[in-house]
This record gives sequence, structure tokens and C-alpha cells, in this order.
Amino acid sequence: MIVILKQNTEKARIETLIKKFENMGLSCHYSSGAHTTILGIIGDTTRVDIDLVRADEIVEDVKRVSEPYKAVNRKFHPDDTIVRIPVSKGKEVCIGGGFFGVIAGPCSVECVEQIISMAKEVYKSGATLLRGGAFKPRTSPYSFQGLQAQGLELLLTAKQETGLPIVSEIMDLSHLELFRDVDVIQVGARNMQNFTMLKALGQCGKPILLKRGLANTIEEFLMSAEYIMAGGNSQIILCERGIRTFETFTRNTLDISAVPVLNHLSHLPVVVDPSHAAGIPWLIQPLSKASVAAGADGLMIEVHNKPSTALSDGAQSITPAQFNSTMDVIKSQVLFEGKKL
Amino acid sequence: MIVILKQNTEKARIETLIKKFENMGLSCHYSSGAHTTILGIIGDTTRVDIDLVRADEIVEDVKRVSEPYKAVNRKFHPDDTIVRIPVSKGKEVCIGGGFFGVIAGPCSVECVEQIISMAKEVYKSGATLLRGGAFKPRTSPYSFQGLQAQGLELLLTAKQETGLPIVSEIMDLSHLELFRDVDVIQVGARNMQNFTMLKALGQCGKPILLKRGLANTIEEFLMSAEYIMAGGNSQIILCERGIRTFETFTRNTLDISAVPVLNHLSHLPVVVDPSHAAGIPWLIQPLSKASVAAGADGLMIEVHNKPSTALSDGAQSITPAQFNSTMDVIKSQVLFEGKKL
Amino acid sequence: MIVILKQNTEKARIETLIKKFENMGLSCHYSSGAHTTILGIIGDTTRVDIDLVRADEIVEDVKRVSEPYKAVNRKFHPDDTIVRIPVSKGKEVCIGGGFFGVIAGPCSVECVEQIISMAKEVYKSGATLLRGGAFKPRTSPYSFQGLQAQGLELLLTAKQETGLPIVSEIMDLSHLELFRDVDVIQVGARNMQNFTMLKALGQCGKPILLKRGLANTIEEFLMSAEYIMAGGNSQIILCERGIRTFETFTRNTLDISAVPVLNHLSHLPVVVDPSHAAGIPWLIQPLSKASVAAGADGLMIEVHNKPSTALSDGAQSITPAQFNSTMDVIKSQVLFEGKKL
Amino acid sequence: MIVILKQNTEKARIETLIKKFENMGLSCHYSSGAHTTILGIIGDTTRVDIDLVRADEIVEDVKRVSEPYKAVNRKFHPDDTIVRIPVSKGKEVCIGGGFFGVIAGPCSVECVEQIISMAKEVYKSGATLLRGGAFKPRTSPYSFQGLQAQGLELLLTAKQETGLPIVSEIMDLSHLELFRDVDVIQVGARNMQNFTMLKALGQCGKPILLKRGLANTIEEFLMSAEYIMAGGNSQIILCERGIRTFETFTRNTLDISAVPVLNHLSHLPVVVDPSHAAGIPWLIQPLSKASVAAGADGLMIEVHNKPSTALSDGAQSITPAQFNSTMDVIKSQVLFEGKKL
Repeated sequence: MIVILKQNTEKARIETLIKKFENMGLSCHYSSGAHTTILGIIGDTTRVDIDLVRADEIVEDVKRVSEPYKAVNRKFHPDDTIVRIPVSKGKEVCIGGGFFGVIAGPCSVECVEQIISMAKEVYKSGATLLRGGAFKPRTSPYSFQGLQAQGLELLLTAKQETGLPIVSEIMDLSHLELFRDVDVIQVGARNMQNFTMLKALGQCGKPILLKRGLANTIEEFLMSAEYIMAGGNSQIILCERGIRTFETFTRNTLDISAVPVLNHLSHLPVVVDPSHAAGIPWLIQPLSKASVAAGADGLMIEVHNKPSTALSDGAQSITPAQFNSTMDVIKSQVLFEGKKL
Repeated sequence: MIVILKQNTEKARIETLIKKFENMGLSCHYSSGAHTTILGIIGDTTRVDIDLVRADEIVEDVKRVSEPYKAVNRKFHPDDTIVRIPVSKGKEVCIGGGFFGVIAGPCSVECVEQIISMAKEVYKSGATLLRGGAFKPRTSPYSFQGLQAQGLELLLTAKQETGLPIVSEIMDLSHLELFRDVDVIQVGARNMQNFTMLKALGQCGKPILLKRGLANTIEEFLMSAEYIMAGGNSQIILCERGIRTFETFTRNTLDISAVPVLNHLSHLPVVVDPSHAAGIPWLIQPLSKASVAAGADGLMIEVHNKPSTALSDGAQSITPAQFNSTMDVIKSQVLFEGKKL
Repeated sequence: MIVILKQNTEKARIETLIKKFENMGLSCHYSSGAHTTILGIIGDTTRVDIDLVRADEIVEDVKRVSEPYKAVNRKFHPDDTIVRIPVSKGKEVCIGGGFFGVIAGPCSVECVEQIISMAKEVYKSGATLLRGGAFKPRTSPYSFQGLQAQGLELLLTAKQETGLPIVSEIMDLSHLELFRDVDVIQVGARNMQNFTMLKALGQCGKPILLKRGLANTIEEFLMSAEYIMAGGNSQIILCERGIRTFETFTRNTLDISAVPVLNHLSHLPVVVDPSHAAGIPWLIQPLSKASVAAGADGLMIEVHNKPSTALSDGAQSITPAQFNSTMDVIKSQVLFEGKKL
Repeated sequence: MIVILKQNTEKARIETLIKKFENMGLSCHYSSGAHTTILGIIGDTTRVDIDLVRADEIVEDVKRVSEPYKAVNRKFHPDDTIVRIPVSKGKEVCIGGGFFGVIAGPCSVECVEQIISMAKEVYKSGATLLRGGAFKPRTSPYSFQGLQAQGLELLLTAKQETGLPIVSEIMDLSHLELFRDVDVIQVGARNMQNFTMLKALGQCGKPILLKRGLANTIEEFLMSAEYIMAGGNSQIILCERGIRTFETFTRNTLDISAVPVLNHLSHLPVVVDPSHAAGIPWLIQPLSKASVAAGADGLMIEVHNKPSTALSDGAQSITPAQFNSTMDVIKSQVLFEGKKL
């Protein structure tokens, strides 16, 4: 951490600041010149609150040199984390460390026939996890809000039928008890910085699928994962799902660079959700391929048997037939990349 | 709402779609040409889920003509809403409809001496409400997270001392009971689309200060207010606090146009938070002035007696002396604009 | 400038780098710790190419401490620059240093009657300069491209009729000769980083109105002004005209903070163009007021007698009557701010 | 095109507007309801200036249904355009329609030894075109501005030595004559909307590499290509090179979705420049792979033998050895995709 001091600061005040850092177990190097005076802070600065340092009257600016996250940092944990999801029949589904996962299913769970038929379809095509929304974050209060608790029960029925572990989004901590049999709890983009929820999930003992907020930087994304890991839970799957930019042709802009960057900075597995990133069915296949090529550990794809009658986000879903042919392409590409699916 | 149909669609399928709209009490006008076929949907389309229409296989695109919100829409409620906050001594503080409010105080409540002295200072300078964070959303799990329940108690003590009604942020619905004596409940930018919370606040019977999410459009902002109003609570103050853009000199980019735009589209009062928008103390005065000139109904300003020892966001706070001189400028400008402070 | 070195770098290579800086007349302070090694570079680093330093294999990262611009920097030129535009009748129009300027007129020059009548109208209402586009940058090759050379002649005629100095946009350097009688040459947002043009304008001896590019940072904006000043021309008016963000209600997002920030960082005058920033006529008055309150030295407003028949950008123009009433408001506010108009 | 009319508009004024459209050879469908009145404009609306329609006082809003570009539109030209660059020895290099091209070389041409050695290196590794900057757009007037005319001569020498056709950027139209022997003229991101230049290049008879502006939408990008094609030149290569967003880890955000979207909307070939998109050498390989997988027709990569002594953008260049191993990966992936390199 580098602290740039204001010109003509009294020696005594600088010494007070230096002592403050030394009391935190850090050491300071002082450089002074005609135009600038700099303090180089050496040591583990993860716990230094950069805003507080910046607020000191004698401080002009502060710049971090090392990352503000530690638990999720690859520097301190070089090996890939493999997220392991136990499957009812004694097996497990893995994501990360060479294992590629495909999470597929409808945006919303709508009825028992729909979710069971979808589960069978995506299983047949090679999906390894079943997704389905029970609690739905909708921009309008007048839109369908999900089947809620009943939706989770229908997902569990579909799991029994197919053996596919299930992924579903939690929207409020008060529902946590309802998720006790859900295999992977999804934190949606809008809750990426719901810190109270992240802390609780750090102690829930279940794998978490953490989606990147649509205007959050990669560093903020990793800081949110740090919240969960700081609570003791390292079974975290990071999910890039597009960021908000000025471009309007696609619903969001898939930040494909985030995939290799997250692989570089962190040991956690990274999956991509091309359905939400693009919002356009015909983009799902090329963006899935691009994600595999960029080093993703998995994909999350919305599939609906009748997109035109879906109760939410039908416009971005593909049909089971389209999913099947996309999976053919994905499988051969995953093989080409030397990963297991 | 305008529905653009795909070329060469069968007549029968178009008729099915038209019937669907007619069953919702809407009427359809059909226009067909060499290159495009269009359905104009006439009536109250607020409850039509645009994504579902778009998902229909015969639909090329859908465009809204009227706004998707109704309760917060000025078209259906032309008069300004005045948010009225009862003050302990039989008076009330008003925001909106010609009443200008100033919410001031520290980012975080730190101790009883701090919050009482700050409350007295900002009261003396002319603030009409006291702000103070008890539950703090912090990017890092290693940063100070607020005094929580104790912070709210200290705020209430400061209210007793000064008579200033208090504003504090709620971070999780499970804390709602703790806010029973808080005068205005703040929904932070990160929770603007926490729909479960918005629904609950629609039924809490208290004024809500709703902050715009840092990557949310004005329309999404109003849809979140619509969630609260749909629940029966129309005492909502909208707060513009800067959006995330490519510019890095300021922490966020204050969207000053949002002030007159919100005034135009909605009857709800609009306040501006220049502290979070800019993140730089010397910008607070010019941005406050710009906000008044653009038509804001109030301001929300962070003040700290010793910004350099603040436990959060000190870098963006101004001192009581700076706040006092800013208030002198603001007061004369509010007068110039013909509003009451 | 702070250079963060990679871990475990050989001493000899660090010394080579230090010598490189010393040969540029700079001094280096070396700080080494367990996790980080830092070089603090002290002196005038304006001419150091930060990308070249970053490219050195032993360098992890580089951070600037002082601004990369010098001529336009208020630190080295504390007094406001006043741009003085000589008027035919022996007077001059000033912008900056307490002088407020209003540039008004149609987006495009269309015919002699139009430009003369518009010039008379805006003069009557209090505008101090006449704007009019002769060369028009249009997104579509099929849209009206401006009257070109003839448009400039018509502007000169209007200047003769009213005495108003004229401002018009140059689109290509090859047209420079045609601008010999234009009082202020405008560089449009799309040409803000047309460096060949900026260099030539640095030597043209005329005031330049430099518009901020729609995705350029404040620092890049000042670097472009630095190009012009480095060529010897300090008669530069900076123009904030909105930046591109995710918000779609307004055409662009007016970055109101840029006004006080530019005033802080540079001595050059700053004007605001609310017409292009918003793209909506009813936003021009509130945004003009906000600009004056934020410290702007002037405004640039599109006025058209029949916006519905304008050959370009009619949708964002106001009528002479609307301009007249906006000017009444602006004049009293400029007075309130203690400036001269 | 759909025109939404204001409520309570006089019949006569609507008829005038309808007549205006009919005079342009378009037909109008009129739909009127309780809340909205709509005109559906049917026919070739490419030449309708949407801003002019929006400026009509009786118009509330206008929405385009069909694309505003025609020449570059795949709807009217379904087959892929193949850009063919003649090579001195009677052969040609192709990009598009199944032919994959790799453009490689240093950011700036620095001296004859450098450019010849780089040309030989990239040729050996499989590049099909040589890039090298002679005129360099630099943010700072104090940075190296390129060898200019001499740089182009050195590129031609390198072409003679290796047979590689050359690509170089034009910064001002006045230099066009100097580019007579350059094989592909590059229009940089900052000049994407330099319409005077685009028009001239539409008549220059040479292939153009058009880079997307860093804040330009895909539609604006295609409109700029339309400018060139409208002038008669259809030998255009579109280049996605990253857009500006809030994310700061990478220099820009590679918009990978733009590749399949451009392939869908236009018949022109699309290449990706991962060097400028990321600004980080270790991202070049994963982003190149992602580009191939997403359907790109080529890549543009910066290579420098000693990035740390490069006169520009060294930080984002890879070494010839890194390029060689990246090319091994790219070649097998291009083969996997069924394209020719």
C-alpha cells in the first residue's frame, strides 16, 4: 500500500501516521522529494481500511499494491478448488480443477410436469446439474414472482426422478431453512453485495453459486466471495453473467476476460451464464463455445420446452432440441480443452 | 405496446396472439406491409410481461410505448407527494411539494458522544433530519460493519437531545423490528432491487428513503418504488446518489438529469446525496448547489467532526464547519428557488 | 510516480531502471519489504511514458501520483484563463474569470433567412455568441451532411447583421482554410482525440471550443487540451456535453461533477452543452441552471425556430420563445452567482 | 418504423405527417386507441432521418423496426464477403468466408532492424499480415508519435523481405497519398466516426480495417462501415477491440458477443484485437481462443521482441516466442472450427 502525503505536512503528524501502521504490524518506508512525499506500507495490508487512511487530513491519496482479498486469492492457495456436490446415488458432481459442469433448466419452475420433463431432457443431453427458479427477482411487482416454497419442492421431485443435483436462487435470508435439501444455493446478481446474506451463507455448509453483480468489478466480486470464505465455506462457484454497459443489442455485455482473470487471481471455479449475458437464444451456442475456450469450468444455460409460454425470461431460453445440439458442440470442445464433462 | 411480428407468420398464430391480448382487456390494431407486420396494443399494459410477449416464436421484437409503472406515475397522480415525518414535539418535517429537507450526519454511528455532538452541530446549521449508519454495507469483510442494534439506540438518544427525526439504513429484513422507532428507513443502493425487502417495506407504515442502485436505470428505480407503493406505502423519498460509469476521478457520476426527469415522471420527492456521488469533500458544495438548481427537494450530506478518524467513509465527509458554510449557501439558494427550508 | 517491482528481481536490473529515471533528471527512492518493493519517482514526470515503464519486465505496476498534464494544469497557472473573442465593432466577448458566455443557435445552418432570423432572436434574448453547424457529423451516410463551405458563409452574413461572433465545428483539417473568419473553432466530441487536428489547431491563433468525447475521462479531456496548448494556443474553452452510460432515458449523461473538477484541475474556462447532453428540450432549462450553480463559465444551447422542420437534431432544440424565457432565468442566476453576462 | 403520436393531436396535422412519409415512397398504417395513437411506417426506411421525425411537435416517440444500414446488412447480401489482399508474389491473403487471417507485428515501427526481424518472426509463426504503426495516436503530446512517413517505408521494406502484406493506421486524410502501397488501411477506434475520412476511404480502392470505437454501439459500428460501402468500397474488415466500461482490471472490456452479432447482422468479416482489448500479455492467448470459438474470421496481435524497450504499448505486447506458442494453439483451434489459416 502506498500513501501519498500532502505537501508541507508537519513531521509530527507523519510520525503519528507511521506509528498507526506500525501498531498494525506493518512497516513503513518514507520517501520525500521536491514534489511528492510517499509512504510505502509493507506487510499484510488486507485488513487496512483504505478509506480510513484516505480520510486522514495529511493524506493526498492511497493506492493498493496487493489485493484486498486473501482467502480466495490464488497467491495463498495455488491449487484449484474443486467444488464437489454429492449426488443421491453415492456419486458426486465436480466443478473446477479439470471438471466441467453444465447447469441447465428453466428460468422458473412452473409445474411438476414441466420441471420433470425438463430435468429428463437436460439430463439426457448431458447436463450435470438442474437449475430452476422458485423465488424470482422481477423488476415489476406485477410480474410472476415464482412458485416459492412449492417450487423448491417440485425441484426436489425432479431430482428424485433424474438424480440431478439442483441449483436454485435464494432471495432472502428468512427462506434459508427452505433450502436445506437444495444442493447448490445460488446468490443472484442483485444480491452479490447483500453482505448479511453472504455472512450467513459462509456458515451454511453448502456449495454456493455466486453471480457477479451487473455493475460490480472483478475485485468486488472476489471480495463478496471472500465474505463467504471468511465464514468458513470454501465451496464457492463464481458465475460471470454479463455486465451492464452502453451497448443495447445484447441484454448485458458478457465480460469474457473475467474468466481467465478470475482463474489467474483466484483458485475458485468459474462458470459462465450466456443466457442472462446475452438475452438472445441464438447467441447461447457461440458464447458457450467462447467460454469453454477462455477457460471456464462450466456453463449455466436456460432451457424451456416452450419458451413462448414460459412464465419468465422465455425470450432468452433455448428449446431442449437446441440445447441438445449445443451440448454436442460443447462436449467435443471440452474434450479438446482436456477437461472432463 | 407495439409488437413487431416475424415475416411470413401464419394468420392463425397471429389471431391466437391477438386473442391473448384481448383476454387481458386490451385491444389490438394490426398493420401489415411488405417488410413489416405490426400489432399496436392499446389499453393499460402495465401488467403485460414484456419478456413473455417477446418469447413468443412469432414475435420479432416488442417496444413499450407507455411506462410500466402506475402508482408512482405523475400521469395518474399529477400533484407532488409530500413526505411528512412527525417530529416528537408535535411538529413535522416535510419533503416535497415546495418543502426542502436536509439530511445530515456521520456515515457510521460510532459512540454516544460522537452522534450527540454531530446531531447538535447539524441541527444548529439547519439540517432537518439526522442520518447515521448502524448497519453498514462494506465491500470487505475485514472492515468495520457498524454498531448494529446499539447504533440505532444511540441515534434515538441523539433524537431525544435535538428533536431531529432520524434516518438509518436497513440491510436485512430480519432487522425490521429494530427499526420501529426510526423515523425514515433507508434502502441502500445495493438493496434497491431486493424485492422481498421492498414488498415488506410497502407494509411497514413508515417513510422510506429509496436510493438508486449504482447501475440501475431511472425506469428500474421507479419500478422499485412501485413495489413499495403497490404494498400501500406512498411515503417514499427517491435518492439519486451517483451511477457507475467509466470515469474514475469521482467515485461515481452524479446523474443530475435524473432530478428533473424523476420530477417529470413521478410525483415522489427527489433528494440528492452528493457525498456518495462524488466521494470528494470539496465537490459537496458545488454539487449541492447544482442539485437545488436542478429541482431537488432535498440533500443528504455526510458530516463528521474528525473525518480522519471516522470508522467508515471519512474521506467523503465534510466537517461541521464546512457543513455550516455550505448550509449558508444552500439556504439562500433554496430561497432563490422559492422553496421552504 | 510509483513503480511497484516484481518479487525477487535481481539488484542489477533494478539499478538499470533507476539509472534510466535518473538520466531523465528524476530521483528515485527505493523501499523494499517482505511482500513488495517500491520505487518512488520524484520530479517532473509529465514526460515519462507510463506505458513504457509498465512494459519493463521487472515492473509489476506503475501508478501516477501527479497529473500527466502541465500547460493546462492550475497548479502551474493558478489564475483563470479568460478566452477573449474580438467582436467586429471594437468590443470583445469574454468567457472565464467571472465572465459568463452563452453560445446559441441552430444545430445546422439551413438557409440565409433561417440563420439571420435565429441570430437576431438569440441576440435579443442575450446570447453572446452564435453557433451553427456547417459541417455536420452524422451517424448515417444518408442523413443531411450540412451546407459545408456555404454554411460558413451564411454564418458570416449573420455575424455582420448582428455583431455576434460565430462558433462552428471543423470536421477535417483540410477545411481549416475555410475557417479563417470563424471566431471560435469547435472540435466535436468525435474528434477530441484527433491528435493531428489538435496539433494543427495549437498553431492556428484562434480560440478553440473543445468538446469532451463521449467516452473520455476528464484526464484524457485535459490531455487533449494539453495538445493544443503545447502548440502555443491557450485560448481554449472546455465543453462538457454528456458522457455515454447505461442510462437510456437521456441521450447522454451530463457529468455535472466535471464542471467543478475541471475548475479545480485547470485554469481553462468550462461551458456546458445541455442540448446534446440530454437530447430533450424540457431538460435544457433545469440542466442550464444546474450548470451555472456548479460553476460553469458558459452554456451552449441549440435553438431552432421550427424544431420540427430542422434538418438535424431538431428533437433536442428549443424554440426562440423557450430560449428567451430560459435566458431570463439564467441571467438572474448568473447574477446570483456573481458573474457577468 | 413506428411513430407514436401525442394524445389529442388534430387530424389535419396527422394527415400532413402521413403525406410526408407517402411522398418518400412509404406507406402508413394508422392505429388509434384510448391511450395511444400509432403510425406504422412500412417500406425502406433506411433514408428516413429518425431525429427529424422525432422533432415533429405531434410526435411523442419514434422506434425503428428495421436496421438503418443497408449495404452492410446480411439481409440484403446473405453470402459472406471475403476480403482479398493481393500478395506481391501473385498470391492473395483472404479473410472471411472460411478464411482466417492473423495480423501481427509491433505497435510502432521503430527501426529497420526491428521491423524486418519482427516480420520474419511472425511470418515463421504463421501470421498472414504484418501490422506496424507509423502514425501513432497517443494520449499525451509528450509521448512518441511514430516514425510517420519513414515508418511506412520501413514497413514496405519488411514486406519485400517476407512477402507479408502490410496493415497500418491512417490518422489524417492528408496522409492518404503516403498509403498508396500499404495493403490494408486501418481506421483506428478514435477515427471510427471521422465521417470525412470514411467517405474518402470509400473511394480509395483498398481494403479497410475498421476498428470499433471504444464507446460505440454495434449499430454505430455498422453505420460507419456503411459510410465506406456507400462510397463503393466493400472490402471492409470489422475489428472488435474492446469497449470502455466501469471494469478497470483490463484496459477495455472485450465485447465477445459482438463477434457472433456482427456475423449475424452483416456479411463483412470480423477480426478481434485481444492486445488492445485486454492490455495484458497473459490474456492474449485465452482471448484469442475465445474469439476463434465465437466465430471470428481473424486476429490482430501485438508482438514485440523486447516489450520493455518498445516505444509504445510494450506492456500489452507478447514476445515472438509467446506468439509462436499462441499460434500453435490458434492453428489447431482454427482447424477444429473448420476454417483455413
